[in-house]
Amino acid sequence: MNEESLKLSEKLVPSNYIHQGIQARQARENTIRQLIQHRKLPECGWDDVTIEMFLQDVAVMDSNNFNGNCGVGEREARIYSSLVYKRHFGLGHGIGRSGDITAVQPKAAGSSLLMKLTNSLALDAIKIAGIKSVEGSFVVPMATGMSLSLCMLTLRQKRKSAKYVIWPRIDQKSCFKSIVTAGFEPVVIENTLDGDELKTNMAAIKEKITLLGADNILCVMTTTSCFAPRIPDSLEEVGLLCKEYDIPHLVNNAYGLQASKCTHLLQQAARVGRVDLFVQSLDKNFMVPVGGSIIAGFDAGLVEEVGKNYPGRASATPSIDLFITLVSMGTTGYKNLLSERKELCKYLTEQLQSCAVIHGERLLQTKHNPISIGMTLSNLDDSIPPTEVGSMLFTRFVSGTRVVAPGKNNTVGGHLFKNFGSHSDVYPFSYLTAAAAIGMTRNDVNLFITRLDKVLTKCKTNKTDSLKTEKIDKS
Amino acid sequence: MNEESLKLSEKLVPSNYIHQGIQARQARENTIRQLIQHRKLPECGWDDVTIEMFLQDVAVMDSNNFNGNCGVGEREARIYSSLVYKRHFGLGHGIGRSGDITAVQPKAAGSSLLMKLTNSLALDAIKIAGIKSVEGSFVVPMATGMSLSLCMLTLRQKRKSAKYVIWPRIDQKSCFKSIVTAGFEPVVIENTLDGDELKTNMAAIKEKITLLGADNILCVMTTTSCFAPRIPDSLEEVGLLCKEYDIPHLVNNAYGLQASKCTHLLQQAARVGRVDLFVQSLDKNFMVPVGGSIIAGFDAGLVEEVGKNYPGRASATPSIDLFITLVSMGTTGYKNLLSERKELCKYLTEQLQSCAVIHGERLLQTKHNPISIGMTLSNLDDSIPPTEVGSMLFTRFVSGTRVVAPGKNNTVGGHLFKNFGSHSDVYPFSYLTAAAAIGMTRNDVNLFITRLDKVLTKCKTNKTDSLKTEKIDKS
Amino acid sequence: MNEESLKLSEKLVPSNYIHQGIQARQARENTIRQLIQHRKLPECGWDDVTIEMFLQDVAVMDSNNFNGNCGVGEREARIYSSLVYKRHFGLGHGIGRSGDITAVQPKAAGSSLLMKLTNSLALDAIKIAGIKSVEGSFVVPMATGMSLSLCMLTLRQKRKSAKYVIWPRIDQKSCFKSIVTAGFEPVVIENTLDGDELKTNMAAIKEKITLLGADNILCVMTTTSCFAPRIPDSLEEVGLLCKEYDIPHLVNNAYGLQASKCTHLLQQAARVGRVDLFVQSLDKNFMVPVGGSIIAGFDAGLVEEVGKNYPGRASATPSIDLFITLVSMGTTGYKNLLSERKELCKYLTEQLQSCAVIHGERLLQTKHNPISIGMTLSNLDDSIPPTEVGSMLFTRFVSGTRVVAPGKNNTVGGHLFKNFGSHSDVYPFSYLTAAAAIGMTRNDVNLFITRLDKVLTKCKTNKTDSLKTEKIDKS
Amino acid sequence: MNEESLKLSEKLVPSNYIHQGIQARQARENTIRQLIQHRKLPECGWDDVTIEMFLQDVAVMDSNNFNGNCGVGEREARIYSSLVYKRHFGLGHGIGRSGDITAVQPKAAGSSLLMKLTNSLALDAIKIAGIKSVEGSFVVPMATGMSLSLCMLTLRQKRKSAKYVIWPRIDQKSCFKSIVTAGFEPVVIENTLDGDELKTNMAAIKEKITLLGADNILCVMTTTSCFAPRIPDSLEEVGLLCKEYDIPHLVNNAYGLQASKCTHLLQQAARVGRVDLFVQSLDKNFMVPVGGSIIAGFDAGLVEEVGKNYPGRASATPSIDLFITLVSMGTTGYKNLLSERKELCKYLTEQLQSCAVIHGERLLQTKHNPISIGMTLSNLDDSIPPTEVGSMLFTRFVSGTRVVAPGKNNTVGGHLFKNFGSHSDVYPFSYLTAAAAIGMTRNDVNLFITRLDKVLTKCKTNKTDSLKTEKIDKS
Repeated sequence: MNEESLKLSEKLVPSNYIHQGIQARQARENTIRQLIQHRKLPECGWDDVTIEMFLQDVAVMDSNNFNGNCGVGEREARIYSSLVYKRHFGLGHGIGRSGDITAVQPKAAGSSLLMKLTNSLALDAIKIAGIKSVEGSFVVPMATGMSLSLCMLTLRQKRKSAKYVIWPRIDQKSCFKSIVTAGFEPVVIENTLDGDELKTNMAAIKEKITLLGADNILCVMTTTSCFAPRIPDSLEEVGLLCKEYDIPHLVNNAYGLQASKCTHLLQQAARVGRVDLFVQSLDKNFMVPVGGSIIAGFDAGLVEEVGKNYPGRASATPSIDLFITLVSMGTTGYKNLLSERKELCKYLTEQLQSCAVIHGERLLQTKHNPISIGMTLSNLDDSIPPTEVGSMLFTRFVSGTRVVAPGKNNTVGGHLFKNFGSHSDVYPFSYLTAAAAIGMTRNDVNLFITRLDKVLTKCKTNKTDSLKTEKIDKS
Repeated sequence: MNEESLKLSEKLVPSNYIHQGIQARQARENTIRQLIQHRKLPECGWDDVTIEMFLQDVAVMDSNNFNGNCGVGEREARIYSSLVYKRHFGLGHGIGRSGDITAVQPKAAGSSLLMKLTNSLALDAIKIAGIKSVEGSFVVPMATGMSLSLCMLTLRQKRKSAKYVIWPRIDQKSCFKSIVTAGFEPVVIENTLDGDELKTNMAAIKEKITLLGADNILCVMTTTSCFAPRIPDSLEEVGLLCKEYDIPHLVNNAYGLQASKCTHLLQQAARVGRVDLFVQSLDKNFMVPVGGSIIAGFDAGLVEEVGKNYPGRASATPSIDLFITLVSMGTTGYKNLLSERKELCKYLTEQLQSCAVIHGERLLQTKHNPISIGMTLSNLDDSIPPTEVGSMLFTRFVSGTRVVAPGKNNTVGGHLFKNFGSHSDVYPFSYLTAAAAIGMTRNDVNLFITRLDKVLTKCKTNKTDSLKTEKIDKS
Repeated sequence: MNEESLKLSEKLVPSNYIHQGIQARQARENTIRQLIQHRKLPECGWDDVTIEMFLQDVAVMDSNNFNGNCGVGEREARIYSSLVYKRHFGLGHGIGRSGDITAVQPKAAGSSLLMKLTNSLALDAIKIAGIKSVEGSFVVPMATGMSLSLCMLTLRQKRKSAKYVIWPRIDQKSCFKSIVTAGFEPVVIENTLDGDELKTNMAAIKEKITLLGADNILCVMTTTSCFAPRIPDSLEEVGLLCKEYDIPHLVNNAYGLQASKCTHLLQQAARVGRVDLFVQSLDKNFMVPVGGSIIAGFDAGLVEEVGKNYPGRASATPSIDLFITLVSMGTTGYKNLLSERKELCKYLTEQLQSCAVIHGERLLQTKHNPISIGMTLSNLDDSIPPTEVGSMLFTRFVSGTRVVAPGKNNTVGGHLFKNFGSHSDVYPFSYLTAAAAIGMTRNDVNLFITRLDKVLTKCKTNKTDSLKTEKIDKS
Repeated sequence: MNEESLKLSEKLVPSNYIHQGIQARQARENTIRQLIQHRKLPECGWDDVTIEMFLQDVAVMDSNNFNGNCGVGEREARIYSSLVYKRHFGLGHGIGRSGDITAVQPKAAGSSLLMKLTNSLALDAIKIAGIKSVEGSFVVPMATGMSLSLCMLTLRQKRKSAKYVIWPRIDQKSCFKSIVTAGFEPVVIENTLDGDELKTNMAAIKEKITLLGADNILCVMTTTSCFAPRIPDSLEEVGLLCKEYDIPHLVNNAYGLQASKCTHLLQQAARVGRVDLFVQSLDKNFMVPVGGSIIAGFDAGLVEEVGKNYPGRASATPSIDLFITLVSMGTTGYKNLLSERKELCKYLTEQLQSCAVIHGERLLQTKHNPISIGMTLSNLDDSIPPTEVGSMLFTRFVSGTRVVAPGKNNTVGGHLFKNFGSHSDVYPFSYLTAAAAIGMTRNDVNLFITRLDKVLTKCKTNKTDSLKTEKIDKS
């Protein structure tokens, strides 16, 4: 309702009541104004009413929602199904233009505004998470792997002769494939075993650089977040090396934004050495559905180039999801989630430790991994393959554990990995991992430990026969 | 977004794009302004976006949606479930105050505004439907029967000694019960058979008035819409009689608003004679869920008194439903629905006529009933009771037919009705009725006729055995 | 998906994954099955997914949602607007039939099932709230006042000559009007002042009964929940009296279900004396939007009669809202809300006490009122009328306080009440009340006390000039 | 509700009513079963109720929606905001696995099933649109340009030495950039002017192939849908050439699926020559929001390889949108849309022709372009640049026209294009284009012509002064 409508309303409802209502409305509009002005997470999270109000404001500014608009182009954001229309809040134009994924669209002022704001909020969230000196970032509706490919494709334009990407091994298919898909040859650096931890082999990297020649190397791609017993790569050392040899440094920060250890590594590596671009998953760090990531960097110009390299428009969905989520959380909410995660990681470690002791196992000592925890599986009944533990947990409604046992080889993108899953050709134990990721609850941990305990009890004595017929018993 | 937000947005999106968006938004706000100003159905219906925008505007003006409000009363419109919250668009305060269902609430400026507007729209719709001289009306969240009771309870306050309600028989329970529930004694007037039609027995009414004494009669309650072969009551004649004897005239206009014959009767009766109040169903006339009605009259003061007589607040749901529906329809849409109904009634009559002929039946000649049509069921196989035809149709997904066969007596509210369902102690035929109500489609008619034809075919030859095992075959 | 669909799905997705999904689905279906079987609140509340799944199951069983159905009746639950359709989950037929609001509808198996279940859940909730021996109850889509009228109209049918309703005064318009609307003459019993408390004058009631004659009295209508300093009526004593004189006893339990003191009174009164029917508000006790109430009693037959007396179908909305809310809460959630309310009432009392002391006021000693608390307003600046305090609080976004100052007379339904609002012709103080109602939060109390403190500070010194221009400052 | 629940329901609602409800439900479940069985568009479109029922069925099969599930992985599809949860129907896991975008996920049986079905429906839709011999396809949550890049990156793996992409010029940035981003050098083939039409210069292509060497050429990338006066490329001839020289043929079928002329070209080219992969936009062909495309081909194995090349999971949103849309349309609805488009194209041509004549202009004769139509802008007032016409139309709420005037050069991805926008260095006229795209209405055409007529009228006489101050006047 505009001023005039409110004035006219006073003929129907006494003006002092209307006035109180207007004041309440203005408070909400003020909240929105502050967001547009400061382009940072609000201190307190917004309620859904304000969010929907804003999304509606935005939607009616897009041409497909203009009353009386007639469209005679080939792309008019007509939406056939009202179910689809509703789930997109009427926003049909996506983000970006054919030239640039961060460009505004004349036909879609609202969508463009939302996209710009979301990119600013993403930048702010990265800072809150600990990477204070980040300079540029944008949300891209592709998951981490494809986004890493896009970064490499952009770097290629400056390093026409480069053929190789140096990559400390991490056994996760999509980051390896991102190199192959981008058309480069991955140079796998085996990790070094240090106690239980698997860490970056700096000597091997240096050796490869010398061997291949810096100009032939597109970039070094390191990883922060990973499954134990691997730990985050030595970003600072790699950063220094990259600086020294003038090689781009691309960081796969998949779910590292949620852990201050990872963000600290990034911040430091950029400060003392070189980090060109780093990519993080939206779903894993911000609790939105799978499908987007943030490409960020310490040089706004380079980040912009990546954006310009995305050919064509793109889905607004990940941006909308992130927008809603970040304004819902607010700074306070987001920080709370981060600190709760840290505490739950401690709690999970303690509980898992107690459970391990009972069953004659032990935790892997991987204190440099801030998210994932490993427990040996060394004392199972002989007839039970360790991986069975994972299946048994899954049928008991525990999702997300990973069991790794030596001996499984795998060919990814034409490259053979020995003991795939363990990040190492030679890791000596079978083990199970669990992770304390953002959004986990204390109840998740408790349920997990109870069910794990039951499964391990079952696996210690000979239960092979009964296994086949067992029914799922949920604790 | 307020002015300031829009201004700030121009830092992110070029001002000419923003400007185009603002213009489109203003067009919507203007639509809303016109509604508040004129309080009549818009010419063209609103789209859902504008409706939701308006409902949101309204909701944030209610105290339960004030950010930072603290409630320390016994009734603060807290809503526990977010599903419930959403379905009510955040509106929790209902309508009315303890003293008056049409009063505004200080805590709920938005809900109050919506209620006032809906009552105005209802009045306008009644006029569009043909009752031009209606003076007052309000939506009440009770179905027709209970609303008729409320009218009678209000009339009582002016006619303390009145005990009787004169009521030309119509075999529908709730209107009869509305009299009993209100505490009055119904004086049933048997209808007169005229050809196939059952019509008001004016002589009997007059006789009863003389017999009982005008002062002892609370009102005469007539009916417009009804199942054939009954036809609408002779409202004009009754109205003249009521005027003459100074007896209130209450009209049950249940689903009569959709038929110009019924509204014309009301308009005429009020012009030449007397009509005090008339009640119509929301669901039957406006295609909203069951639960509300409109109480209207030709004396705004009397209508207001009825509103003041409703003790306490009430559900806003029927008002919200009607609001959404009327602004969705617009004058154009509503008029189209009315004229389509009229055409479909003709079409249904023709189709039914053809079908009757094929099966050796005939249509009842009830041209004064503008909605309901009857067809004899005189040639069924002896082993099949006529009511079986209704069941067979229902299991073939035809809903809404009614089969009436002589011989069924029924006691309602302590009163015995012979041949209940036929509006008459003596109606000579078994018959089936079908109605052309607002919102019906040509496809409804076609499906109905096809299925009726199949059922009648089945009922003409001896099929009793096979009936028991038949499966539903949907055409 | 039916069995066959799931089987076919295994051609697309491995059967063990599908199987896990089926198990999870079955767990939800089992939850639903238990509800239908036991018809009691589930121990743990349902999540929204299960609720929506159930509502959808129910909706597709109503004829208006049958694919291929053709409707040829006058009432086919067609819904014009998709916004309206969605908010009703596709349920359009309402509840009840013309004869009986608790009857099932052939055309609407789903709606009928939902209605029946909701009535059972309501009964269970009443028991959980403390009225263990309740025997019958149903949800009616009318607020408390109109429902009380309906009870009286039902009682009339057994007490044809009764004219009076004996009513211990409580200054709330709708319950008084419920008597007048039902066509009876209220016999107001002034309350007795006992310390700060206003309580039932038993002697006066007895005297009136003798004076008017038991047969001429339709019922005694007592009240449980009320604003301090009035306390709940002496239900037990009244119940005994009603038993002795064979007079129906109707209890207005408006928001009393949330307070064990009130439910205990009802339970006791029914055990030792007589309680025929008691009515409670849905919104005030269950945190749903305004519009419904539960009519309950200790004789299932009588409760059924009330249901049969409602003429016609009715809105399903209050039933749907209550259903969703009760299954969301579960027994655990509902009990928690009840005990939290009790604790918050204590907390509110303490905080208000501290605030009173600071400003030279005192709390009214009304320990028998379990919900509402009064504080004197005896030391305001002379130029400030006590009611100003209420307005000042409202503009500071405190809703729900009530300020009562002697001297305000009011005519309701033709009856003059001296000092209307104070439940008494002679209450000696000005005071402000606040209530600890279900759903209140600790934050509500804190905000209230802070703002009250500011307002009182303002009102103690001469601020009359500044008052006029003050801006709202929200704490 | 499962069988048991329905059985138990018969204690509350008569079994014959329940039975009718069950039958209606089974009809819906049968519809769903047929879809899973046949994996083709249903003949008749589904209503939203069935769609939501199916989506809910699917959602509860994903682990994030399991009641009692505990997640201890790094990716558990937790969703923070309930607004986000709702808009994704609870589906959080996206589609694909790290290795393959078309792989199923153990944690997400429901999402996996939906993805598989959608890919099958997409294949069916392509066939319906006319490309009968298509063998494989999948939906990818990237717009056309990025999808073309992905195709090229996949082709590279088989043609390691290839450096060039031969590309008949089309002036749309993202398809050109798709080549550059993929790391290849575009070889631009200028179009041939034939009458008003711009068509493929076959001789030039052949010459380039010979010059560069077939092995050095990754592929020829042709285009079907395009703005007039360019016409679809000579796919058949190019296909023959590619076959002859053993060069992959990639087709940008951006919005060509909606025009039988384009699909016929594809079908023919594949039959007589060679087409490896073709890519089409979801939003432009199926009226869903921007963000997805379908990658398809005539060799299922190759299409699968492209899917395996996408590194990582991806957004399910475009798949969900397409699923909903295709089952909503059904075969009937989709075919109707296609034929309506064809008719409207004729209508638009006629109307534009009449308008052109009035203003002394003429239509470009481009009968081989089935979607886009051009009209000269040769007689404007000298002071008005032709592009002004586009702006004027846009401010009059006509979106989608394009005005091309000679003289605008543009550098895209490092390559200079003369007269960018006209697909040709030498096109002789200024002109305006309009397109008849799927979903357009007759009203769109009428509004467009009316407004165009006004604008042209304005531009014929000297209006430069008034232009600056004009207000938008919407017809």
